[in-house]
Amino acid sequence: MTESASRAPATTDRGGRPALSATSRTQHRRLREQGSADRADLRAVLGAGFIAHLGLIVDGAPMVLPTSYGFDDEHLYLHGSVASRSLQAEPAAEVCVTVTLVDGLVLARSVFEHAVNYRSAMIYGVPRLVTDQGEKLRGLRCLSEHLAPGQWDYARRPSRKELAATSLLALSLDEASVKIRTGPPGDGDGPDAALNLWAGELPLISVWGEPVPDPALPAGISVAAHVRARVGTPAFD
Amino acid sequence: MTESASRAPATTDRGGRPALSATSRTQHRRLREQGSADRADLRAVLGAGFIAHLGLIVDGAPMVLPTSYGFDDEHLYLHGSVASRSLQAEPAAEVCVTVTLVDGLVLARSVFEHAVNYRSAMIYGVPRLVTDQGEKLRGLRCLSEHLAPGQWDYARRPSRKELAATSLLALSLDEASVKIRTGPPGDGDGPDAALNLWAGELPLISVWGEPVPDPALPAGISVAAHVRARVGTPAFD
Repeated sequence: MTESASRAPATTDRGGRPALSATSRTQHRRLREQGSADRADLRAVLGAGFIAHLGLIVDGAPMVLPTSYGFDDEHLYLHGSVASRSLQAEPAAEVCVTVTLVDGLVLARSVFEHAVNYRSAMIYGVPRLVTDQGEKLRGLRCLSEHLAPGQWDYARRPSRKELAATSLLALSLDEASVKIRTGPPGDGDGPDAALNLWAGELPLISVWGEPVPDPALPAGISVAAHVRARVGTPAFD
Repeated sequence: MTESASRAPATTDRGGRPALSATSRTQHRRLREQGSADRADLRAVLGAGFIAHLGLIVDGAPMVLPTSYGFDDEHLYLHGSVASRSLQAEPAAEVCVTVTLVDGLVLARSVFEHAVNYRSAMIYGVPRLVTDQGEKLRGLRCLSEHLAPGQWDYARRPSRKELAATSLLALSLDEASVKIRTGPPGDGDGPDAALNLWAGELPLISVWGEPVPDPALPAGISVAAHVRARVGTPAFD
């Protein structure tokens, strides 16, 4: 995984972190907000989220669209319909896909030090329209199972006609970076600590709720076991 | 609020919805996923979220960055640091800011009809660097109070030096659109209803968790009442 230094902050790698600076304050901050170019970190963030923000250039201006995604070892998969106009206009245009998970608010002693604990992945590349039917089916399955695990085998799979009407984009995971902030605020060892104000993290907890049946559903059809099993479990772990 | 037809789906307005098409199936779908150009809807989405995805063009390619935001009746406020490199290179460049809230998964009878219930706002414009000190302080307060309500009065406010070191961007809310999907899947009245599979919504519930004190905090400092009051309350209402 590479990262273009010209457009993202310098990253560190588990094997070769840049030297930390001299003060303990800066040291802490570095450790709390870290860039990573590790593929395992990228996979962890992509695995935890299910909505991405796709950045395109349309008529010379940026456009950011929310969309679901799937991924395997090599690619991120997106529905082509999201980017259809842009793709028609510029089939070989670069995109940026960002997945962000918010873990909590960082409440500091000073307003200036407030922050957000988050995990974020950014992927750059030129998406490829998937034309091979086998790859298309695998990619769509990836996308479907990432959003709603178990539904590919439970629900009716795409017909030949539906497959033909669906376009799928594959984006290489080769150019990506991850940024994660965890932990308390950075002003615990500075002069503001003497203010004796409460400081810490307010976590954001996201879980799957109780399934709401479609009102059109006939009586006697119970929630599928794989759906029922998600109730109460964390959504972004 | 206007919307450029060349780059976003046609919107409807409460006062003048486009005529719905003939079939009940299409009618349902239209009602479930709606565009809006109502300022009240825009305010509701911006008020419910607190993380935006900012789309910029950097070196000719799109870049999407997560960032916190605040807003008032006229503007969205963003920290200038998020876009600093881009702003230096192209001070009058257009951006797109998207705020998305995920409300649940839409589990249909066919994989093809799966969807996500969400609320999303997109704002387009050329951000303005706020130089007036009064506006800057009001904007920063907006941003701070939207992310962490109550902290502006509780924590230490920015010093003159901190204010000088902070840059603030204001983006007009004049060019924006909102898109919302709610409700069950769209295949409840189609042929797949006969499959007798469970279908409905799996809601995503996000609440504020129990505050985690900074380990550097001396004993005896209790959680501020305005922070305590958020525990267990919905995060994106």
